[in-house]
Amino acid sequence: MSWIISEAGRQLEKTIDFGNKFLIGNGYFGYRGTMEEYGKEELPACNLSGIYDQQGTAWREPINAPNGLYTQLFVEDEPHDLRTGEIVAHSQQLDMLRAIHQRKTVFSGRAGKVTIESDRFASSTDNHLLHMIYSFSLEKTARVRLVTGIDGDVWDINGPHLFDYSYYSESRTIAVTAVSGELGHKIAVADTISLSFEGEVRIFETEKGLFRQIEFIAQAGKSYHFTKAVAVYTSQDVEIPLEQAIKASFSANKTGYKLAKSKHVEEWKERWTMSDVLIEGDEKAQLALRYSIYQLLILAPQHGQTTSIPARGLSGQTYKGAVFWDTEMFMLPFFLHTDPETAKNLIKYRIQTLDGARAKAAEYGFRGAFYAWESQENGQDACSDYNVTDVFTNRPMRTYFRDKQIHISSAVAYGIWQTYVMTDDRSLLLNGGAEVILECARFYSSYAYYQAEKKRFELVDVIGPDEYHERVYNNAYTNKMAAYTIDIAVKALEALRDVPDYREALIRKLDYQEDMEQLAAMNAELYVPEPNDETGLIEQFDGYFKLEDATVEAVRSRLIDPKEYWGGAYGVAADTQVLKQADVVLLLTLFKEEYTEEVKRKNWQYYEPRTEHGSSLSPCIYALLACDIGDPEWAYPYFMKTASVDLTGESKQFAGTIYIGGTHPAANGGAWMAAVLGFAGLEIREGKITVTPQLPEKWQKMSFKIQVKEDVYQVEVTKEGGNIWKQ
Amino acid sequence: MSWIISEAGRQLEKTIDFGNKFLIGNGYFGYRGTMEEYGKEELPACNLSGIYDQQGTAWREPINAPNGLYTQLFVEDEPHDLRTGEIVAHSQQLDMLRAIHQRKTVFSGRAGKVTIESDRFASSTDNHLLHMIYSFSLEKTARVRLVTGIDGDVWDINGPHLFDYSYYSESRTIAVTAVSGELGHKIAVADTISLSFEGEVRIFETEKGLFRQIEFIAQAGKSYHFTKAVAVYTSQDVEIPLEQAIKASFSANKTGYKLAKSKHVEEWKERWTMSDVLIEGDEKAQLALRYSIYQLLILAPQHGQTTSIPARGLSGQTYKGAVFWDTEMFMLPFFLHTDPETAKNLIKYRIQTLDGARAKAAEYGFRGAFYAWESQENGQDACSDYNVTDVFTNRPMRTYFRDKQIHISSAVAYGIWQTYVMTDDRSLLLNGGAEVILECARFYSSYAYYQAEKKRFELVDVIGPDEYHERVYNNAYTNKMAAYTIDIAVKALEALRDVPDYREALIRKLDYQEDMEQLAAMNAELYVPEPNDETGLIEQFDGYFKLEDATVEAVRSRLIDPKEYWGGAYGVAADTQVLKQADVVLLLTLFKEEYTEEVKRKNWQYYEPRTEHGSSLSPCIYALLACDIGDPEWAYPYFMKTASVDLTGESKQFAGTIYIGGTHPAANGGAWMAAVLGFAGLEIREGKITVTPQLPEKWQKMSFKIQVKEDVYQVEVTKEGGNIWKQ
Repeated sequence: MSWIISEAGRQLEKTIDFGNKFLIGNGYFGYRGTMEEYGKEELPACNLSGIYDQQGTAWREPINAPNGLYTQLFVEDEPHDLRTGEIVAHSQQLDMLRAIHQRKTVFSGRAGKVTIESDRFASSTDNHLLHMIYSFSLEKTARVRLVTGIDGDVWDINGPHLFDYSYYSESRTIAVTAVSGELGHKIAVADTISLSFEGEVRIFETEKGLFRQIEFIAQAGKSYHFTKAVAVYTSQDVEIPLEQAIKASFSANKTGYKLAKSKHVEEWKERWTMSDVLIEGDEKAQLALRYSIYQLLILAPQHGQTTSIPARGLSGQTYKGAVFWDTEMFMLPFFLHTDPETAKNLIKYRIQTLDGARAKAAEYGFRGAFYAWESQENGQDACSDYNVTDVFTNRPMRTYFRDKQIHISSAVAYGIWQTYVMTDDRSLLLNGGAEVILECARFYSSYAYYQAEKKRFELVDVIGPDEYHERVYNNAYTNKMAAYTIDIAVKALEALRDVPDYREALIRKLDYQEDMEQLAAMNAELYVPEPNDETGLIEQFDGYFKLEDATVEAVRSRLIDPKEYWGGAYGVAADTQVLKQADVVLLLTLFKEEYTEEVKRKNWQYYEPRTEHGSSLSPCIYALLACDIGDPEWAYPYFMKTASVDLTGESKQFAGTIYIGGTHPAANGGAWMAAVLGFAGLEIREGKITVTPQLPEKWQKMSFKIQVKEDVYQVEVTKEGGNIWKQ
Repeated sequence: MSWIISEAGRQLEKTIDFGNKFLIGNGYFGYRGTMEEYGKEELPACNLSGIYDQQGTAWREPINAPNGLYTQLFVEDEPHDLRTGEIVAHSQQLDMLRAIHQRKTVFSGRAGKVTIESDRFASSTDNHLLHMIYSFSLEKTARVRLVTGIDGDVWDINGPHLFDYSYYSESRTIAVTAVSGELGHKIAVADTISLSFEGEVRIFETEKGLFRQIEFIAQAGKSYHFTKAVAVYTSQDVEIPLEQAIKASFSANKTGYKLAKSKHVEEWKERWTMSDVLIEGDEKAQLALRYSIYQLLILAPQHGQTTSIPARGLSGQTYKGAVFWDTEMFMLPFFLHTDPETAKNLIKYRIQTLDGARAKAAEYGFRGAFYAWESQENGQDACSDYNVTDVFTNRPMRTYFRDKQIHISSAVAYGIWQTYVMTDDRSLLLNGGAEVILECARFYSSYAYYQAEKKRFELVDVIGPDEYHERVYNNAYTNKMAAYTIDIAVKALEALRDVPDYREALIRKLDYQEDMEQLAAMNAELYVPEPNDETGLIEQFDGYFKLEDATVEAVRSRLIDPKEYWGGAYGVAADTQVLKQADVVLLLTLFKEEYTEEVKRKNWQYYEPRTEHGSSLSPCIYALLACDIGDPEWAYPYFMKTASVDLTGESKQFAGTIYIGGTHPAANGGAWMAAVLGFAGLEIREGKITVTPQLPEKWQKMSFKIQVKEDVYQVEVTKEGGNIWKQ
């Protein structure tokens, strides 16, 4: 059964890894796969979406809410704790079908074998709620002391973020509120429990937490349990989050765990009906792909939420909880094809943060919208000018992700236009989408320089997707995406012709009349590097082919310190052709209809051995293009690498000296793309749906659903061909 | 008497320093101030001008000829050697008036006190000749063995460069030839001696040298001496350099040391008559300034030679013996005002190397002439892409001096135009000068980008004089100099109007018709940063004022390793406002008539405390501008620093791990500029000569000569004013 992810045995060395692997979530928060008894050293987190705090000059990062699931069982004063206890058996699993995390541990102690079990889920029907049922039984009768409550002493990377804790308790409900240091956000967590037994209850507070202690004599062989309904609200949601949290937690408890769970499971069933991709003949691939889809589903902003998805999902504070181009370029396609409403929520986040992008452009002396490389709320850019630490000197290194990775704005425009085309929902354009596209195009026209002798516009001094090469000229991907942005700006203006009043008002509001002429000029004269006539190769940027043609292995062997940064001015890759991740190959994948198969094949073959895949965004793109040129066996290992990244935990955990672990939703989205758009070869063009299957050897069949506008289609693909029917 | 530079005592730790300090030369070669008995460990050198060799992939550098002065005296088989002998007294001095190096050492040994004296000079009348008289006397009668000859085992930084040694001897003449490894240049050194005594002579060769051994019994108290005429020729001078060297050495010996010396001294007297600058009231300044002028005079390409002057003069192989912008911007003014023929020789070097500059422009995809940052013969650029070594990793660091320091071409154009204007010699323009200026202007028009929104041309991604800040946009100095180049290109074309055939032919040859339109456009629209209306400050480059405003001392305190490079991507100065050397202040100095005194004062005051003066080109410029704004007391310490740099030896000896010591002709030229153009305030505009004295407190009077066109003027300046009369 390919719905269960599980691990057996204590494996304490993998505590951080399992925290990521067994993550649950509902778009509003992620809850890491840690044990109920863990403290902040084990990196538990109820990681909130779209709410950030900065401590001093450290990096700004999302807030982790107080941990409402905290529970610790003492038997005859002996803690029964996975970290320290004597363990007979332990297992942890994720039921992806129902999105439930399960834990079972058998301890051995004074009361003989003590079994603890818990089920938890992040409610998919009310995304402020986190439910748990916790049960235990003892081999011998003994006095037990159960401590359960809200632990506000949370794990932070650049914290602390929470101050001014206050406590509330009434009957079976307790609550903790705290205030964030920078902006004074209020975070409230309330927790209501129902016990299956009676005991002596005492409420106690610590410096940063509020707990109940319940003491009683547990009988041998008898099973005891309690349920917990935790509600999380912030002042971004409601004016008085404490009130709302208490109310929600109380009411959820009243509804009862069972009913909440059945609604949750029902909802997930529906999601899976629409999202699942069945693979026949490859259990391992099936599990990995499903897991990738699960990850996307727990991150999706539901219920009208208009946040986006951070690069490490909701698995913690790494990557500052910021939203990257990952969302539009790697995750959006999954939602666009299976859940267009969520896709629109993601897009709305960019529309809402347009002013932040405008401010960033202005900061650098440009016009239009220069989106944040690492976007937090209001579109402010969390990206530092010093994003890497030099391992030799321990000094911060000046990096150019923030100021030179200008392709970010094109990703935003691309996402909006793709969503508009797929959904045919013109309101997207009218409610800010067109404005964003126009402002992104304006940014490129403001950034571009005209080379009079070559009679062309150029984009100089940029960083492309391959971040190992800084400050390059005419990065093929960047120039192509900028050209695309300008093209869709012109098309968007065209598309608004039948709402002339709106169109005129928009042009007037943006003072866009002159820009339209400049766009026309750039549309004609923006330089986009073309495949070389003889070799068929597109040069990644001006002068790339003149760089030393060293192998990835040769470059790796030059490292003095395994943690040193490959890029930057003097990194081992900087003066070689070794690239971090798909760059020209990404361009060819996105615009595959514009290039011959020969060009795509030659570039794949050229760039593939030179790619280090130092980013989890890379392998899926190599898989996609390999499918496109008819080589699924080239694609397969890249697909598996992409789909398994969070299962194996084999991803980069450190950049320089900085922890960057967590989940990889872009890779998850890439796995779906590689499967559906790659192996199945799904294409939707002008309303026509086609498949061009390129199944790997052992895959007999794939089946999945897609939504196009209002209609849902069932797609079945074999090596011989495919069937598509409307449902 | 302010004509003598001397040092007493052995001071072996200063051997390298004294090699620089007591340098003699004649434009064709420099001969370091080392002792006759020294071997290559003490860095002796007969450093040749304009002839280079590369060994493997090491840096290309000038060739040191075999050392024709090598002489060692043994008394009863005991070497009398400054390095090892027992010393009673030792002194070394430079008689600047006569350009003669003198040495006197009193040893104590088996023959009692033994006195060795030598005089040497690099002939100013025949620059292939090096003369020496060597004398000795013993306190007690003893057997002496004198070894004197040609030591071909020369000091090299990136050698060896000489191979295939062959030897010749006939009567009192011996000669050594060798062939350079890369290009097969032949180097011939011949040496003819005349002895004042008789002895048993034996000729012997070593692997790389040919020597005579002369044995005899020296009588107590009697003085013995011999003279030596050394001739150096290369296959760049004549077809068979050996023949020529033998002939010249033989003939010089026949003429005799005395007559040769009197002619040499006569010639130097004339030079000093024209070049000397008298300062009354400040002996120290007088000596330092005279020493600076001496340095320039020993480097000047005389006798129609069309080489230029390397950045470390002819003091050795440091800085690859290459010619930098130093020549045009820092040395040329001295020659232009005192010896216009030499100025023209310097200019001709650039005209002759135009093709090299064209090739460099083409290499980077540009048109026109992009002169070598470090020019060797034929204008090839000796500058490496990796000019600095990282002290932490020992890896070469990618530097951008070669490809981004584009102001070099403007320096060449500036030098030509200044020379043309000063000499009114149109043949300079007709014999290549105009062509160089047009090609330099074309290079800038090819390099420039048009910013459509700002409606201006920009020079992006450059390095200005302040090399600590790499890859900056719109460096004020660079843009101004490029604008100047374009302006004089237009003027040069104007100046050629009355030779219409030549003009047409040139335009046709260069295919320059279209460029003329582009020049007109750039002349109108090239962006040159202006002083800010409120602050009066010119921003060194886009964004400079946003950098951290740290003091030089604060930045210095951040060094982890004293040898680490301040610039580059991550150097301690890179993200601060600390600059290596005069940049905006240089611009204001060169174009002082275009800016108000207030602007000049404000910028001087702003940039001065932020300047590290990590280059010897910097202090003189601060002195010049300080004089211009009427603050000679601000100028004085900078003048003294400039004028004394090679006297004190207090200059940077290492860049990273690389030895960069040697003499500093640009600083020497700067000292002259600071004195004559600064303190005396000499200006020549449209034939009119004026002075605006700003003498330092203790200077009572300055007097000097200048040549304007064919006329020589005597200038006398006091605090009250000046007198100028034609001679």
